[in-house]
Amino acid sequence: MDHQITKPSILPGFMELLPAEQIAFNQMMDTIRANFERYGFIPLDTPLLEKAEVLLAKGGGETEKQVYRFTKGDNDLALRFDLTVPLARYVAQHFADLAFPFRRYHIGKVYRGERNQKGRFREFYQCDIDIIGLNKLSLINDAEIPSIIYSTFKGLGFNSFTIRLNNRKLLNGFFESLGIQDKIGLDAVLAEVNAMGVTDRTGEAIAEFISIKGSNREILASLKQLEVNNAQFNEGLEELSQVVHYINCFNVPEANVVIDLTIARGLDYYTGTVYETILNDHPGIGSVCSGGRYDNLAGYYTKQQLPGVGISIGLTRLFYQIQEAKLIHLNQAATLTEALVIPMKIPIEAAIGVANQLREAGIIAELYLEETKLDKKISYANKLGIAYVVLIGEDELKSGLLSLKSMVTGEQSPMGVSQIIEKVKDKQ
Amino acid sequence: MDHQITKPSILPGFMELLPAEQIAFNQMMDTIRANFERYGFIPLDTPLLEKAEVLLAKGGGETEKQVYRFTKGDNDLALRFDLTVPLARYVAQHFADLAFPFRRYHIGKVYRGERNQKGRFREFYQCDIDIIGLNKLSLINDAEIPSIIYSTFKGLGFNSFTIRLNNRKLLNGFFESLGIQDKIGLDAVLAEVNAMGVTDRTGEAIAEFISIKGSNREILASLKQLEVNNAQFNEGLEELSQVVHYINCFNVPEANVVIDLTIARGLDYYTGTVYETILNDHPGIGSVCSGGRYDNLAGYYTKQQLPGVGISIGLTRLFYQIQEAKLIHLNQAATLTEALVIPMKIPIEAAIGVANQLREAGIIAELYLEETKLDKKISYANKLGIAYVVLIGEDELKSGLLSLKSMVTGEQSPMGVSQIIEKVKDKQ
Repeated sequence: MDHQITKPSILPGFMELLPAEQIAFNQMMDTIRANFERYGFIPLDTPLLEKAEVLLAKGGGETEKQVYRFTKGDNDLALRFDLTVPLARYVAQHFADLAFPFRRYHIGKVYRGERNQKGRFREFYQCDIDIIGLNKLSLINDAEIPSIIYSTFKGLGFNSFTIRLNNRKLLNGFFESLGIQDKIGLDAVLAEVNAMGVTDRTGEAIAEFISIKGSNREILASLKQLEVNNAQFNEGLEELSQVVHYINCFNVPEANVVIDLTIARGLDYYTGTVYETILNDHPGIGSVCSGGRYDNLAGYYTKQQLPGVGISIGLTRLFYQIQEAKLIHLNQAATLTEALVIPMKIPIEAAIGVANQLREAGIIAELYLEETKLDKKISYANKLGIAYVVLIGEDELKSGLLSLKSMVTGEQSPMGVSQIIEKVKDKQ
Repeated sequence: MDHQITKPSILPGFMELLPAEQIAFNQMMDTIRANFERYGFIPLDTPLLEKAEVLLAKGGGETEKQVYRFTKGDNDLALRFDLTVPLARYVAQHFADLAFPFRRYHIGKVYRGERNQKGRFREFYQCDIDIIGLNKLSLINDAEIPSIIYSTFKGLGFNSFTIRLNNRKLLNGFFESLGIQDKIGLDAVLAEVNAMGVTDRTGEAIAEFISIKGSNREILASLKQLEVNNAQFNEGLEELSQVVHYINCFNVPEANVVIDLTIARGLDYYTGTVYETILNDHPGIGSVCSGGRYDNLAGYYTKQQLPGVGISIGLTRLFYQIQEAKLIHLNQAATLTEALVIPMKIPIEAAIGVANQLREAGIIAELYLEETKLDKKISYANKLGIAYVVLIGEDELKSGLLSLKSMVTGEQSPMGVSQIIEKVKDKQ
């Protein structure tokens, strides 16, 4: 061709995977999806591009600066930066067509033009579930969420993780009782107390609050003993007690859910229960699954009162961390193929027939069709990590028995197609 | 809240589905994925945003005008407009890490700022497979592709469709033999002959060529009888004959694959075999799955010669057409939930326990947790199309037998949890 070669590359901050990694990534996504579905969440898919005025109706904040926003023709467009705003817009827009409580999951890419740094991505998958009520939503939903987190992370292969639980009303009410204004930001208050130490009575009270430790039962008892005279605090305490009780009913082991009074995720957004999920052996990674309860999902788009509770897994970042720290064992094969059919100097028709039979039996089968030496064909299977090859040469055609070779053990034995099907299926 | 309400809406030309539609859409996507995987294709996922200079390396054409392109910071960005250019970039970029032939599938959204009209979408899913060879690629791959189209469309529920088959070399060589320059565009030549009728000798020859009809065997025989003295034509004829022969070996019924000498899809891109897929009862929809063979995938990004063959299904448009013309029966339920557990004036713990058991048995189970009247709970199940509800009241708690009610038949009978599990599983 009479043109220049453009260097093939992608944008900085974007993740792209090689086949083996991609297969492992998709397996994780499938596990998450299966868990979300098992709990009765329905799938949603919304446009990645939306009207900027709609997506940014709330406006302000760090997020807006990071948004990919541009114009095309008359349209002012933006790439979504999370899955929550599109959910709010969706529920408001399609309100009349939905049944409540509305349980949806959404697995999709979102975009944030973050500062370029290791482990931060500008395009990343979020895996979200939310339960949206109409006017009200039972607190027991807040207890079901941790059971979904638990089954999902178990399913992903994590053995040691902790779901941290708190209730915003506890903190809010506690600070209220001390006369501390919500406006200055509770994160800031906590940070200040943590950093500066304690001098006055308010500081002492906060320190006492934060230092409450023990089992969930002990923490709840200690909170009661504080005898905080504040309605919000007591509402939060009652809610947290209820949630802990019901989490137990959902069969989540006590070791996996602990009350942590210091977590205060998304203070401007969540209004009750909040969750974070920590990998016990890698707390430095931070929360791998977070969320909480909010009073009203879609106030920017509708006058309907839509309380909800939900969580989000940042899968791209989690996958990156898994690779960096080898957190769990990931699939290593660069293929889904279970058996590679290799013809050796025979009419190809016979090999096609065998591949047909394997595929009809539900086996992922591939045919090696290129003309080359046998060792090249075998090395193709090796390079991809295909577990079995089916060799068909003149001898095999004569005897009617094919050669099934395990690429793992090197073992090779003659057998009929139905036996091959059995053996390959068994191994998977 | 003290803010204005923004009208919730999405951009024109973007598809967004309600839950029942979304579930049906996802089922189609799952079917396509399962078929692609069964043939040994590996999944790829590339960024939706790429460097504009890379994505538009080829440049020119109608496509470039439609591209969503913008800048952010120092980056000149574009949203991908197909999955082929990202594949070319990917293969060139990761060449050393891939095994060839490289078989990949990719299901993802692409973006084209098309003129706004009914049935055209600016964001749509493409489902692509391609087999990429290194320097060469066996022609038998061209015959495997129709078997994937066949199994996929059968799997989707289509019963009457035709895969149209042609070879670009036939047309090229034929026109070459008549001294017609390729430059004016073969589509234009065909259109002219079709519209203007025939007056001279060249026109007669073209008309004769186009009028060749019959079974695949007859068409191949007629082409041979033309005795066109052109190397390219004869190469195309030989390839087409071979492809037809091997398609048979792949068990595709003859009725589903017909040679059609008039199809000339992507004349500037495809170089050999070309495919289109027509729904027999709705030919007006046009091709629902198209593709072909190309000499070199990634000439803009690498000097490696990478021939390939592939197809693409435009799923968003196909789904739209299915809905418009009721082409196949789609799932109607607005839920994946198989059983809804409904507590009636009992401590909720017992109901949670039942939901736990159903979920552990692999049943998609949901708990109705809101406090409301029974008929509202039942109407929730009805609205979503949930097949079974499990009713638990005081009587059920006393007897230990729950009430399983089929929402389809209205039948309600008392039974234990294990019997419920069996019954719900059987029905699915």
